Amino acid sequence: MSQRAKYFREKIEAELVAIDLPANPSNLYDPMRYFLNLGGKRMRPVLALLAEELFTEPSESDIKVASAIELFHNFTLLHDDIMDVAPLRRGQQTVHEKWNENIGILSGDALMVKSYQQLAFSGAHFMEVFKRFNTTALEVCEGQQMDMDFEKKPDPATEDYLEMIRLKTAVLIGYSLWLGGKLGGASEGDLQNLYRVGITVGLGFQIMDDFLDVFGDPESFGKTPGGDILAGKKTILWMLSMDIGTADQIKKLKSIYSQTQRDSKTVDEVMEVFSALRIDQKIDELIREKFDSVGSMIKDLNGKEEAKEELRAYLQLLARRTI
Amino acid sequence: MSQRAKYFREKIEAELVAIDLPANPSNLYDPMRYFLNLGGKRMRPVLALLAEELFTEPSESDIKVASAIELFHNFTLLHDDIMDVAPLRRGQQTVHEKWNENIGILSGDALMVKSYQQLAFSGAHFMEVFKRFNTTALEVCEGQQMDMDFEKKPDPATEDYLEMIRLKTAVLIGYSLWLGGKLGGASEGDLQNLYRVGITVGLGFQIMDDFLDVFGDPESFGKTPGGDILAGKKTILWMLSMDIGTADQIKKLKSIYSQTQRDSKTVDEVMEVFSALRIDQKIDELIREKFDSVGSMIKDLNGKEEAKEELRAYLQLLARRTI
Repeated sequence: MSQRAKYFREKIEAELVAIDLPANPSNLYDPMRYFLNLGGKRMRPVLALLAEELFTEPSESDIKVASAIELFHNFTLLHDDIMDVAPLRRGQQTVHEKWNENIGILSGDALMVKSYQQLAFSGAHFMEVFKRFNTTALEVCEGQQMDMDFEKKPDPATEDYLEMIRLKTAVLIGYSLWLGGKLGGASEGDLQNLYRVGITVGLGFQIMDDFLDVFGDPESFGKTPGGDILAGKKTILWMLSMDIGTADQIKKLKSIYSQTQRDSKTVDEVMEVFSALRIDQKIDELIREKFDSVGSMIKDLNGKEEAKEELRAYLQLLARRTI
Repeated sequence: MSQRAKYFREKIEAELVAIDLPANPSNLYDPMRYFLNLGGKRMRPVLALLAEELFTEPSESDIKVASAIELFHNFTLLHDDIMDVAPLRRGQQTVHEKWNENIGILSGDALMVKSYQQLAFSGAHFMEVFKRFNTTALEVCEGQQMDMDFEKKPDPATEDYLEMIRLKTAVLIGYSLWLGGKLGGASEGDLQNLYRVGITVGLGFQIMDDFLDVFGDPESFGKTPGGDILAGKKTILWMLSMDIGTADQIKKLKSIYSQTQRDSKTVDEVMEVFSALRIDQKIDELIREKFDSVGSMIKDLNGKEEAKEELRAYLQLLARRTI
């Protein structure tokens, strides 16, 4: 990993551990500690700090502000797990399984408040950081609602899907990069470009996730291949198939998906259609397009070249492709 | 009602309607509109504005800031209803009943963000208003957690109960009065006193609620008498009985409460013990002590006499006793 990304990740981890979480009530704060301890790349705050470093070296306060995004992100995951009735997260019990749903709801609520507390370290930039955080937080809620509504949508269009993932996952990454620029004193032009980098990266990562769910090597990713298909989820693979498939192929996919029982045979049948349509190629092109665009946008940013290189290298690692 | 309280209530209602709540996603924003429309006295923001008026006339911005407390309060109620598995609120379906639990969780989350957005109108006072709001919000979560834990507590002491209601309901009323003083430019001494007024009022109201649940006139309050007893809830009546009851009376109450089936006969049995202990008198003394203290604290506040009188009159109305 790029040295600065590794360094910032460690700083964020240290901050997360240092945050004031009292012992009691234990049923309120233990789940928070537990959830934060489940780990993760801390990608969002790391991106914020890499972005800031284009313009200035992040201070200790900036690290605290960046950690706000991680706390908020974890809050959304905690509540999402309840809404998705998920038994596991990173191989461990979800909070509502380990404790119960009520505790999950309340602990999540308090975690959101903690994220706002961390924002308070933004100094002179606070009002803009705060207002944009609120807008982003609402967009994330809108995206999650759209995701929940998506299953019942009769004929969702690819734009609907892209809008849903933009709100649900991309805007927070956009905010992360924007935040770093803001704390670093970036110009309005650079701030907008950083945000756009984040949106594009977010869309790219989600499309990658969708792709890997079906075409990824289960040994590398530790997941059942075709988990989304088994769950009847309509991801980008479905969307593109609806766009480019023949009437027969579309009919076949709809028929398979409408079955109430889905198993590995279902996955095979769906993958047959996907392969016939060379969906994997088309998705790969889509992802390449996104990350080529990211590479180009980073080039156009102002800021220190070494810092731009660290950002590009970090994203390249995450995207597992040249940027 | 005092004229100013009535006026501020109308201003708050107008603000709540004016808040930007988009049409879509409808499953995110409709429940918010619905919940805010269930009504209520808007006591917290009204108290904030009455408190501010001791020092200065509230501006339009101040009305927006005060409405933040109402939005936050409503968010806590929305989530509480889910956690309490409540079918009704103010005679109408709760959000999770009318829609579903997931929608209730998410809509509540978004409502919390909306409350933060309203805080942004605090001008020069923002950082203090914001920090104190966060502390208060966490305390409310702690109180709710303590309430959920309370049922399993083997021998809860009266101080535990009072601490639980202090956090769960009183601190937000304390914050409301503090906020009004802050927006009005009150001195540190007046701010602390206003907060104390709020805490005392909050404790007084909760103790009143507990009392009226058992001893109130069902026709006036539209609730089943002894609802708390039927639910096996240990409120101030239980606490005091444990403190002053004989060994036999305590044994009797514990035995009745440990029954899994509770009905109107249960309520009668419990009320027999309460009456023998003259619990109603003791509680009435406790409430009187609280509100006498409120009256005295209001007298000691600085600020315009007419405004102090409006505040006192409003509280007197809510407390249904002389202050």
